[in-house]
Amino acid sequence: MSHTTVAAYAAPAPKAPLERTTITRRELGEHDILIDIKYAGICHSDIHSARGEWGEGGHFPLVPGHEIAGVVSAVGSSVTRHAVGDRVGVGCFVDSCRHCENCAAGLEQYCTGEGGLVGTYGATGRDGEPTQGGYSTHLVVDEHYALRIPEGLALDEAAPLLCAGITLYSPLARWQAGPGKKVAVVGLGGLGHMGVKIAHAMGAEVTVLSQSLRKKDDGLRLGADHYHATSDPATFEALAGTFDLIVNTVSADLDLNAYLGLLKTDGTLVQLGAPEQPLPIAPFALITQRRSFAGSMIGGIAETQEMLDFCAAHGLGADIEVIRADQINEAYERVLASDVRYRFVIDTATI
Amino acid sequence: MSHTTVAAYAAPAPKAPLERTTITRRELGEHDILIDIKYAGICHSDIHSARGEWGEGGHFPLVPGHEIAGVVSAVGSSVTRHAVGDRVGVGCFVDSCRHCENCAAGLEQYCTGEGGLVGTYGATGRDGEPTQGGYSTHLVVDEHYALRIPEGLALDEAAPLLCAGITLYSPLARWQAGPGKKVAVVGLGGLGHMGVKIAHAMGAEVTVLSQSLRKKDDGLRLGADHYHATSDPATFEALAGTFDLIVNTVSADLDLNAYLGLLKTDGTLVQLGAPEQPLPIAPFALITQRRSFAGSMIGGIAETQEMLDFCAAHGLGADIEVIRADQINEAYERVLASDVRYRFVIDTATI
Repeated sequence: MSHTTVAAYAAPAPKAPLERTTITRRELGEHDILIDIKYAGICHSDIHSARGEWGEGGHFPLVPGHEIAGVVSAVGSSVTRHAVGDRVGVGCFVDSCRHCENCAAGLEQYCTGEGGLVGTYGATGRDGEPTQGGYSTHLVVDEHYALRIPEGLALDEAAPLLCAGITLYSPLARWQAGPGKKVAVVGLGGLGHMGVKIAHAMGAEVTVLSQSLRKKDDGLRLGADHYHATSDPATFEALAGTFDLIVNTVSADLDLNAYLGLLKTDGTLVQLGAPEQPLPIAPFALITQRRSFAGSMIGGIAETQEMLDFCAAHGLGADIEVIRADQINEAYERVLASDVRYRFVIDTATI
Repeated sequence: MSHTTVAAYAAPAPKAPLERTTITRRELGEHDILIDIKYAGICHSDIHSARGEWGEGGHFPLVPGHEIAGVVSAVGSSVTRHAVGDRVGVGCFVDSCRHCENCAAGLEQYCTGEGGLVGTYGATGRDGEPTQGGYSTHLVVDEHYALRIPEGLALDEAAPLLCAGITLYSPLARWQAGPGKKVAVVGLGGLGHMGVKIAHAMGAEVTVLSQSLRKKDDGLRLGADHYHATSDPATFEALAGTFDLIVNTVSADLDLNAYLGLLKTDGTLVQLGAPEQPLPIAPFALITQRRSFAGSMIGGIAETQEMLDFCAAHGLGADIEVIRADQINEAYERVLASDVRYRFVIDTATI
């Protein structure tokens, strides 16, 4: 099998700064498309992976990036879903078993088949080769795992939708955020800001629960109806029993029992980030009002397309700061300091 | 207001053995019925309450008992739901606000109105008097909080349905146990044995997860299709990703993350007992398969009636051991030692 050499930014080793390098992409298979990557978002999990903080995962040099937007520049002989010139995106995975119950149901993100989900980077593809992500100029991917980016969504603002957007859209859709529903979004970062936009567009009454009121103006501009500081104990008294749904975008340790108390009867708190330590959940808060504590992870291919179409219809791109590739390491520090409104996106022309 | 003096078994003080005494019941109000209690089940929570282990709750002397079956012997002037001679039951509560959203929706058990739910014992009624439970010969209760016990259900076997039965029926109904669904019941005690019967009658494929195989024959006789010992680590490997629904009747500390791993994608683990300490929940198990950890508490009045009708239609009483009132203290010790198959029921004629 021949390969193509392309430019990329990679972490050469855990904790080493990212630097320009070259990697190989596989030859275009029958069902593959070649994407000229235009933009790649920086997700918090890129930083964990690049720093080798997630245990066994990853191989180095490692090219992060799973919020990818670009244009199709070549297609394999059997490709039917995309054509040269199409605007496409790739999210957190590039393959799955395609046969298990979940894959058959369009829930590829929960693939339970042999080999399971193949992450866009840091994983091993079914060809045995390591996968490398979107901080790069080109990507070869099976057409089934690429999404159509509708006209009306700018590619740079669309890139973060492939992870941050679908991570919020999927639980908001599943737990039926919509007219008459009160939804709280915990944390106003890359994930949270998309949660506010999407929940508002779905017609829900949206509240941001953030540590401080520092970003209140932003939150209201993004579509929130209310904004409360969780550092103020009065918030938890005033809002007790208020919400149908709370989506928690914060991975740090929070006192989730306090948040469970903000749910109505039959309400659900959905955890999106995965703190390393188990969370102490007091069953009393669940039992006495039939509440649920749930988790959700990105979305399937069909739902990701639905999300992109929804965002295009409502004019919802991410709020971004476009950077050059040589600013990635600095951007990582700023992400860790919560100093970004709300997503860094790498212009891959600068790689 | 005049009162009637009736016989009862009460704990005179926290941790003191229960003894025969007399208590007063209120005069029959316009909407009240007088019940000649025939049988009262012994629930594990009676023991906690009688021993003053639940903090502030309770006043002493305390008459436990919230699994009550009897016959109506008098009715107030405006009573329409029950008539003298009717076979009726009373469960865990005898009043609620009647005005909040939950009461209006038939979810009285989650009443959020002023004063909230009034427990059958250990609480304070809206008349300011302490409530006293079913270890007694008579009870006066508002007709709305008494259930009809259908013909075909023996009163002694029906009594435990008022708590153990509805505690299982409600989550099994809400999370749709039925044909094609795989349901696990954790723990085969007073609650668990009703869970097996009801889930089986609903048409689900039922698995018991019990510490040992000691009660396996019972479990299969009660309606379980499978029975596994949780002391055997192989159980958790063999059953990974199997269940749509797990109902946990065990209040003791379990490694719930191991049980969460037994759920399918979108599966729910429902906690019914309330351990005192928070449970450490690893969000990874929830997030990676969109699982939920939920709680549920008894059921509303309409649903409790539905449960009784369902149990009558399927011939499902509790498996009981009828005891004399002077055996209550001994029975408490046997409950704590898990030495009962599966519910003690007091014959109140012996009080």
